[in-house]
Amino acid sequence: MSNGFRLQHVNVMVRDLAEAVEFYVGGLGLEPSPTPDLGFPAQFIRINDEQEIHLNELSGEAPERAHFCLRVADFTATVRRMGERDAIETATWGKGRRLPSGVMQLFVRDPSGNLIELSCEADQEVDPALLDPAVFESAP
Amino acid sequence: MSNGFRLQHVNVMVRDLAEAVEFYVGGLGLEPSPTPDLGFPAQFIRINDEQEIHLNELSGEAPERAHFCLRVADFTATVRRMGERDAIETATWGKGRRLPSGVMQLFVRDPSGNLIELSCEADQEVDPALLDPAVFESAP
Repeated sequence: MSNGFRLQHVNVMVRDLAEAVEFYVGGLGLEPSPTPDLGFPAQFIRINDEQEIHLNELSGEAPERAHFCLRVADFTATVRRMGERDAIETATWGKGRRLPSGVMQLFVRDPSGNLIELSCEADQEVDPALLDPAVFESAP
Repeated sequence: MSNGFRLQHVNVMVRDLAEAVEFYVGGLGLEPSPTPDLGFPAQFIRINDEQEIHLNELSGEAPERAHFCLRVADFTATVRRMGERDAIETATWGKGRRLPSGVMQLFVRDPSGNLIELSCEADQEVDPALLDPAVFESAP
């Protein structure tokens, strides 16, 4: 796991959060994980020290909000290439931002419309020139 | 990563395989990985030694075939619980089976319809009583 890339979570949309938690915890045998207040019913599920499933109860949403999250080796270079491909997507989950944990995040869509959250570890330096206010929230 | 659970791959549906490979390799900076003949256009993408993205060009499919794959800590116990919940799904990707690599696989849907491939390492013993021919292919 040394090249810097890894799957960090898969986000799935559920119709009823309690029913979903029963399935992922009671059925699959995974464990609930601390979950921040996202403003809607949500539960993070721990897979292991490095991976989670994020359950979101958000119905009737379009476009599709389900996604997976890829920690990338070089956030600055990757986001530049995504911008060149017009793949950056701010309509669904909002602009890129630095989370309270320090992790950077930005959403992109592949050419088929699959939604991917790109992120990098909190200690990775990001070129300030990358933070175009059109696609990134201003720094806190 | 010691509890036996991990995300092994995310499977995404793409409209054009070459276009998708350009995005995941040329754009995100990941590497193509050896891909078995699946009978349709497909490319596995390496994330790291333990994780992949599987690109499948399969249009107009219903129900939704996109899924993620969870390696589980105890395949026998997990599949039993899935059976009790009527969560096992053979209509989309076929019955459970042992792959040539030795890995067991079976598909389930969560209560919201999200598709999950369950698998376990090749060296994990599976209770033969689990292998109900209604949901598993007969052993080779």
